[in-house]
Amino acid sequence: MLKVTFPDGAQKEYDKGITPLEIAQSISHSLAKRLLSASFNNKQIESSTKILENGNIEFYFWDDVKGKHAFWHSSAHLFAQIILELYPKSKLTIGPPIDNGFYYDVDLGDKIISENDFEKIEKMMIDEARKDHKFILRESSKKDALDFYKKNGNQYKTELINDLNDEKITFCDHANFSDLCKGGHIPSTGHIKAVKLLNVAGAYWRGDEKNKQLTRVYGISFPKQKLLSEYLELIQEAKKRDHRVLGKKLKLFTFSNQVGLGLPLWLPKGAELRERLENFLKKAQKKAGYEMVVSPHIGNKKLYETSGHFQKYGESSFMPIKSPSSDEEFLLKPMNCPHHCEIYKSEQWSYRDLPKRYAEFGTVYRYEQSGELHGLTRVRSFTQDDAHIFCSQDQLVDEFEKVIDLVLYVFNTLGFDDYEVQISLKDKKDNDKYIGTEEMWNRAENAIIKATTSKKLKYTIEYGEAAFYGPKLDFMVKDALNRKWQLGTIQVDYNLPERFDLTFKNSQNKDERPVMIHRAPFGSLERFIAILIEHTAGIFPLWLTSNQIKLISVGEKHEKFAEKVLNDLEKAEIRASLDSRNETVGKKIRESEQNKVPFMGIIGDKEINNNSVSVRGNGGEEMGEMNIDELINFIKKEEENSLIN
Amino acid sequence: MLKVTFPDGAQKEYDKGITPLEIAQSISHSLAKRLLSASFNNKQIESSTKILENGNIEFYFWDDVKGKHAFWHSSAHLFAQIILELYPKSKLTIGPPIDNGFYYDVDLGDKIISENDFEKIEKMMIDEARKDHKFILRESSKKDALDFYKKNGNQYKTELINDLNDEKITFCDHANFSDLCKGGHIPSTGHIKAVKLLNVAGAYWRGDEKNKQLTRVYGISFPKQKLLSEYLELIQEAKKRDHRVLGKKLKLFTFSNQVGLGLPLWLPKGAELRERLENFLKKAQKKAGYEMVVSPHIGNKKLYETSGHFQKYGESSFMPIKSPSSDEEFLLKPMNCPHHCEIYKSEQWSYRDLPKRYAEFGTVYRYEQSGELHGLTRVRSFTQDDAHIFCSQDQLVDEFEKVIDLVLYVFNTLGFDDYEVQISLKDKKDNDKYIGTEEMWNRAENAIIKATTSKKLKYTIEYGEAAFYGPKLDFMVKDALNRKWQLGTIQVDYNLPERFDLTFKNSQNKDERPVMIHRAPFGSLERFIAILIEHTAGIFPLWLTSNQIKLISVGEKHEKFAEKVLNDLEKAEIRASLDSRNETVGKKIRESEQNKVPFMGIIGDKEINNNSVSVRGNGGEEMGEMNIDELINFIKKEEENSLIN
Repeated sequence: MLKVTFPDGAQKEYDKGITPLEIAQSISHSLAKRLLSASFNNKQIESSTKILENGNIEFYFWDDVKGKHAFWHSSAHLFAQIILELYPKSKLTIGPPIDNGFYYDVDLGDKIISENDFEKIEKMMIDEARKDHKFILRESSKKDALDFYKKNGNQYKTELINDLNDEKITFCDHANFSDLCKGGHIPSTGHIKAVKLLNVAGAYWRGDEKNKQLTRVYGISFPKQKLLSEYLELIQEAKKRDHRVLGKKLKLFTFSNQVGLGLPLWLPKGAELRERLENFLKKAQKKAGYEMVVSPHIGNKKLYETSGHFQKYGESSFMPIKSPSSDEEFLLKPMNCPHHCEIYKSEQWSYRDLPKRYAEFGTVYRYEQSGELHGLTRVRSFTQDDAHIFCSQDQLVDEFEKVIDLVLYVFNTLGFDDYEVQISLKDKKDNDKYIGTEEMWNRAENAIIKATTSKKLKYTIEYGEAAFYGPKLDFMVKDALNRKWQLGTIQVDYNLPERFDLTFKNSQNKDERPVMIHRAPFGSLERFIAILIEHTAGIFPLWLTSNQIKLISVGEKHEKFAEKVLNDLEKAEIRASLDSRNETVGKKIRESEQNKVPFMGIIGDKEINNNSVSVRGNGGEEMGEMNIDELINFIKKEEENSLIN
Repeated sequence: MLKVTFPDGAQKEYDKGITPLEIAQSISHSLAKRLLSASFNNKQIESSTKILENGNIEFYFWDDVKGKHAFWHSSAHLFAQIILELYPKSKLTIGPPIDNGFYYDVDLGDKIISENDFEKIEKMMIDEARKDHKFILRESSKKDALDFYKKNGNQYKTELINDLNDEKITFCDHANFSDLCKGGHIPSTGHIKAVKLLNVAGAYWRGDEKNKQLTRVYGISFPKQKLLSEYLELIQEAKKRDHRVLGKKLKLFTFSNQVGLGLPLWLPKGAELRERLENFLKKAQKKAGYEMVVSPHIGNKKLYETSGHFQKYGESSFMPIKSPSSDEEFLLKPMNCPHHCEIYKSEQWSYRDLPKRYAEFGTVYRYEQSGELHGLTRVRSFTQDDAHIFCSQDQLVDEFEKVIDLVLYVFNTLGFDDYEVQISLKDKKDNDKYIGTEEMWNRAENAIIKATTSKKLKYTIEYGEAAFYGPKLDFMVKDALNRKWQLGTIQVDYNLPERFDLTFKNSQNKDERPVMIHRAPFGSLERFIAILIEHTAGIFPLWLTSNQIKLISVGEKHEKFAEKVLNDLEKAEIRASLDSRNETVGKKIRESEQNKVPFMGIIGDKEINNNSVSVRGNGGEEMGEMNIDELINFIKKEEENSLIN
């Protein structure tokens, strides 16, 4: 008999050789029907793998990342089976699951697959899936494996097998199809109820452009037809919300080849949006005891040698800036922390002065390969909503908690109320990647876990995801399309205070080393605004939008009154504009809706007679006639509501 | 008989050979007594020079720059006379007037002059001056001149004479003293009533460190003892107001060698001050129809090749920033205009859209030699309160006038109500220095003169002072110590629109070239704040200061009430702080005065009983007891008054 422990701590006994699927069946039939994959003692196994020792089991379903990956990995096998049926001379290479679906790289010889073939392949995949073939992992000797692909003339798989150190090779079989595979499949093809091939592209074998170009087909599959429909809608919606498209349409920002790739130019409406976000955060930070500072965008190379950034990133960054007439070299700042350390150092501090909290909207420069640039989410210049807190060891957990409060306040106000928290610790096996002593890392990691726990945040721990100078807490928010984005980050750092020899006088009047916290609730204004655009589809909350109400005069004779209304609104600091063009009211309303203006105020004969404005929401909701004072109060109230979540 | 024309257009006839001094005497005895120098047909001459032809005469007195220069130049002769008396073996070199006084470089052989000798020399100079020796310009042949200095063994003067192309050498004689000299003296030594030697320093012959080091003595002299006393007071006051000293004391900014020379780090109080100035200007600019934009601090080298900046300044600037993995090169931006041109270019404009007014607080980077760096007035990174206006030719004069209005509004609000205006045009003899066609320059120069005239500003024209890309209007403000500073600048530019191929559709739907105006009322925040500190001695107007009122609790039992008052003031958005340290009230008041806090609020037994605060101005003025509401109203009102000039 075996003792099997479940994630909730419950234990059950089973006969030796039982499989995860059988265990699931012993619990409930419906559970077993939904089971996609499992792990035993933290190692992912097949649902048909026989369990031979005591240990911990975990089940994976569609809602788990590992469940989805098994599903898409298995779908790639199904795809490969059909490809071999249709193009028997083609040679398979690799077909992994990805974030959204899977791909398979195939050498089709002289054949070509185009999007026109997708429907046929999808149909064949579903027909085959219905036969509910079991996925069976089978061990093979290296020799047998090589023989199998030799028959086939498949040099790719041969290369992969030869690269394997392990003598134990595995194949996955289903129907009459076998593929070299390490495992991680769903029980059978019957789970796959919907398939969509997404696109076809070229891809070099092993990503090396000196190798042969293969055909890569991307696809996605689902356990229900409805999930596929929802996914396709989501893609459509995401395309409409693409911040690059909306950013251009709403005239928020632009790029210029002359200025340089990845260097955004903020147009007036975008600059206003930035400023409102900055002011919002400034206010919250002021309340939380932060002080603003301003530092230059370059620093002497020595500064980054002291901080360690130059040694770490120097070669892949913008190169040093030489002086015309001296040996001095400068670097574009990739981070604001060294500057803030020097600001801290400009004065002698006592323990009574701490914590010092220096905040700056600091524009930093990092060289990204041009191929990796993407709208505002991957740029070469961006403005961090940065701050560095210098505190004593005693104050660390408390300060960290305060930062968590601030970050959550920001997210909630901006409508990101669904977030996940990840604690990134160092990879304990790869110490060379990090600077600082073991003791420092332990203290910093413990402080983060303690603060996060005391704030009752549900978190996951990822080893190896820490910054090179310290562990961190990352916030992942979910947007309106349920997509996850990494936003705010908080990091503990014992290292820079050491490198910059920062001190304060403790209560015994002795020099003591402060601890440093790096934090940025938005991450960067650029990335945050990109996400905000996609989250809101460009319809910003009223306190953020550049045009709160558009007045629309019906005809020429209504223009004068409309101008008076405009003037009154502007005096009340409401962001209003007037469309008095000689166009139809319908056209003016349509344009205003397209430009995402939240409210419209129509002014015609009736309104002039009643000394009023007819108010209409974006989307068509009629709010009725209001006089000026009512209108001002209405918008002020709506603005306030849009700030309080 | 000669016809002599005066600056007001009046003409008089005189005998041929009359001197300026005699002409002055013919007008009024007191005028002649004050006469220091004169020019004839725009060439400065001696007051004793015989006039031999018809022409225009101008007189110079102490209040004229040219009058002062003649005065100080003559004083240098007097100084040299005494030096030769005291150190007969010394060799004179050059002794020019400077902005404030004069210096003389002397080779003293084995002798040394120290500050201890100053009093004696000053006394000897005054004693000699009282003898009222006439300064007489005397012509000499080159040979005689060389012979004169050969006797003396003075290789410096010999070198100077040999360098002169002109065969006509002149000496200036007074008393028994002769010096090689081109002219520009006062009538006689009797005008010199007060002398102060300021300091002694080393200086290489002809500024070349390979040459012999000479002794340089700086001095200043005045026509009245009282003027000297005032000057010395001014120097004392200027020292106290030095922005480098006050900036440190008030914790506004700092520098760090690690970050780099000339790269200011703004401390919290300084960053606040910057922000308040920015917000003030933003508000005024918004009202004037400007739109804010944000651009990166680097640009592709191509951008500056297009603008012409690279060709013009590339070699003396921060060197290009290379990329780690491509041929792209970037430059730190020395100006914001190329970026704003690209922003303009991101859209197609119609004549109905113009003018476009893009404003940005843009931080720019310019390499200055380390020896030239000075506090905040000469730095390597500074933030321009920059804007670029793109308008049609028809709109140019009107737009230029609007910019003048804005600049004057800013100056008046900040208490700089004494200013001079200089129109800088190009040097018509040195066309190579400038880019752009003759026609463009003419149009631009005429527009500036027209707008300045229509605004009824009194201006001077300086040829050769234009920027390389266009003419400009500069504002020189006088500070509280009557020192002149160059601040705001407005420039017309036909050149960049050409280089960037900027267009708009005119009313005939044809492409037309816009004109560009560059302008910066502050010039840069750094320089402006430096001047503001020295102008106000750090006592900023109430709307700008970081600490409007300091509450001072008398003892421990008054602390709680003081905290309540502080809280109420902060709620009313008054910038208040509380000093509840266990120190004497006297000490707390003294520190608050030193920190230039404009108001103090004392809280003791009496105040708690009366539910009030006793208010005291910086300097000691008692404003009496006020309850909270009165205090809030008082400060709000004072703040408002400090903004409206």
